[in-house]
Amino acid sequence: MAKILITGGAGYIGSHTALELLEEGYEVVIYDNLSNSSRESVKRVEELTGKSLKFYEGDVLDADALEAMFQAEGIDAVIHCAALKAVGESVQKPLEYYHNNITGTLTLMGVMDKVGVKNIVFSSSATVYGSPEIIPITEECPKGQCTNPYGWTKSMMEQIMTDLQKAHPEWNVILLRYFNPVGAHKSGRIGEDPKGIPNNLMPYISQVAVGKLERLGVFGDDYDTPDGTGVRDYIHVVDLARGHVKAINYIFTNPGLDIINLGTGVGYSVLDMVKAFAKACGKEIPYEIKPRREGDIAMCYADPAKAARVLGWKAERGLEEMCEDTWRWQSQNPNGYKE
Amino acid sequence: MAKILITGGAGYIGSHTALELLEEGYEVVIYDNLSNSSRESVKRVEELTGKSLKFYEGDVLDADALEAMFQAEGIDAVIHCAALKAVGESVQKPLEYYHNNITGTLTLMGVMDKVGVKNIVFSSSATVYGSPEIIPITEECPKGQCTNPYGWTKSMMEQIMTDLQKAHPEWNVILLRYFNPVGAHKSGRIGEDPKGIPNNLMPYISQVAVGKLERLGVFGDDYDTPDGTGVRDYIHVVDLARGHVKAINYIFTNPGLDIINLGTGVGYSVLDMVKAFAKACGKEIPYEIKPRREGDIAMCYADPAKAARVLGWKAERGLEEMCEDTWRWQSQNPNGYKE
Repeated sequence: MAKILITGGAGYIGSHTALELLEEGYEVVIYDNLSNSSRESVKRVEELTGKSLKFYEGDVLDADALEAMFQAEGIDAVIHCAALKAVGESVQKPLEYYHNNITGTLTLMGVMDKVGVKNIVFSSSATVYGSPEIIPITEECPKGQCTNPYGWTKSMMEQIMTDLQKAHPEWNVILLRYFNPVGAHKSGRIGEDPKGIPNNLMPYISQVAVGKLERLGVFGDDYDTPDGTGVRDYIHVVDLARGHVKAINYIFTNPGLDIINLGTGVGYSVLDMVKAFAKACGKEIPYEIKPRREGDIAMCYADPAKAARVLGWKAERGLEEMCEDTWRWQSQNPNGYKE
Repeated sequence: MAKILITGGAGYIGSHTALELLEEGYEVVIYDNLSNSSRESVKRVEELTGKSLKFYEGDVLDADALEAMFQAEGIDAVIHCAALKAVGESVQKPLEYYHNNITGTLTLMGVMDKVGVKNIVFSSSATVYGSPEIIPITEECPKGQCTNPYGWTKSMMEQIMTDLQKAHPEWNVILLRYFNPVGAHKSGRIGEDPKGIPNNLMPYISQVAVGKLERLGVFGDDYDTPDGTGVRDYIHVVDLARGHVKAINYIFTNPGLDIINLGTGVGYSVLDMVKAFAKACGKEIPYEIKPRREGDIAMCYADPAKAARVLGWKAERGLEEMCEDTWRWQSQNPNGYKE
């Protein structure tokens, strides 16, 4: 089987993807600087699968270390997840975000070009659609104005890969535009472990449920949605990880560039999520309505038809499972991997 | 007077800007890797002004060299011109363009931030408007889809500076969106010296006039314009250079971020340019109509009102002077600076 490198493979998406790739029989190499992730997640992936993978602690900004790793491993394709990803922090530290994400990606791609590894699956995001012109969002929906540097880095990295593939058609590129990943592996052994106060809804709710945070802030209840709170397309991280496996299966026999949404096609509101999580954990989730946040849109969910057609993939896990699995991870690991 | 660093100051725009800054009494430091420019242009700027400037041969990707230069010089503001700029080459070598332009800018801005120099005037381009929604183009016209990696690098560099200034309001940023710079200094001693076959219309015409190229290719004569050929806003490089002086005068007393078009507000077609140049040089310019080029738009010219209002600047040199000055430079320096 082919050998797959996952940059940022110790993180939330990367670790679940590593697990699914190992289950599918792929060999896996992880390259991660551990700046926002844990070595422990990698150990648990090995425990859960009963298989071993190769781990490198390194930075995508370090061309020499990357090149040495590629030379030693004989990688067939790369899943590029390594990036800074906190929206709020990106507004405060734009240079750091652009440097890490853009220069990091340019460094990685320069090395891949040099060593002749020209298959890449990229962790992109529905944030590149900006305020979408069409809902549900198809891949034909034009990219829009992002509302923060994090989003711009994703949009720019897509542009760079698109231009590279156009200039050098021997490159194969799949841009996976994630909607809102939530949940955790069924075992409760790996999951999302944000540093500090979580940026995203689900880890925030789960930290309220476990008693680490007092109450949830709901930003705006006067949007044009059924209950007035923002509607998003939450996707179970295991479904998302399996989408990566499908993309890897696909890339070796389908040359060119593909853009693919990974979402469920179903939108849930903030209050839907609060209710579903309360049911899963058996506790009330205290929340407080706050003013809208700049840059938030009312509604965003995917048209997932292309993923079904092209990759033969669709999301299989519903809201209840997303909440139960998140809760299992959170309640069994109240401090994440640090114990 | 303040000391101004010009990155890429040995190039076409940079050298004319250095000259005008010296004439205005500013101290000038040039930092240039000479990858697409000549040390000779700097010597001639010194001869023409009778003043000396400081020259560093260095790359904006080299943080250590940049920092040493900033520490040694005590720079007050930066005019950032250093970039790869050939549209066609950018399509062929996207990674090189993104790396040089984006990583180079991030490196420069990281060093500026570290040493506490937080005034920057940036060489941007009307290309960031993409296919503009409004003509004449005001600064309120939204940025659009660029048609090549060169254009994207300019658009992305603007975004990076905008986000940095928003996060750290002590930064002062002026984004100068150039229309189509042409012409040369009145002396005929400095001018545009493209390597290889020119990308832009005016140097192409002038190389046909001087006998280095056989005939001009005119890409499309069926656009919705008066004579069917593309219409652009050509601006004399000395006017453009003086726009930079005005921006530098302005930046020290007007904090924040400003976006300013530098154009004349007048559009000329390709055939207008051919006729005017033929008159200036006293020779026919043979040309041939070719198919439209992908990504070219029919018409593009500036609304220059904001530059007049904010900077007290407007273009003063007309088409005849643009052609005469180009021809003087080209005929006196048929091989550019290489003689």
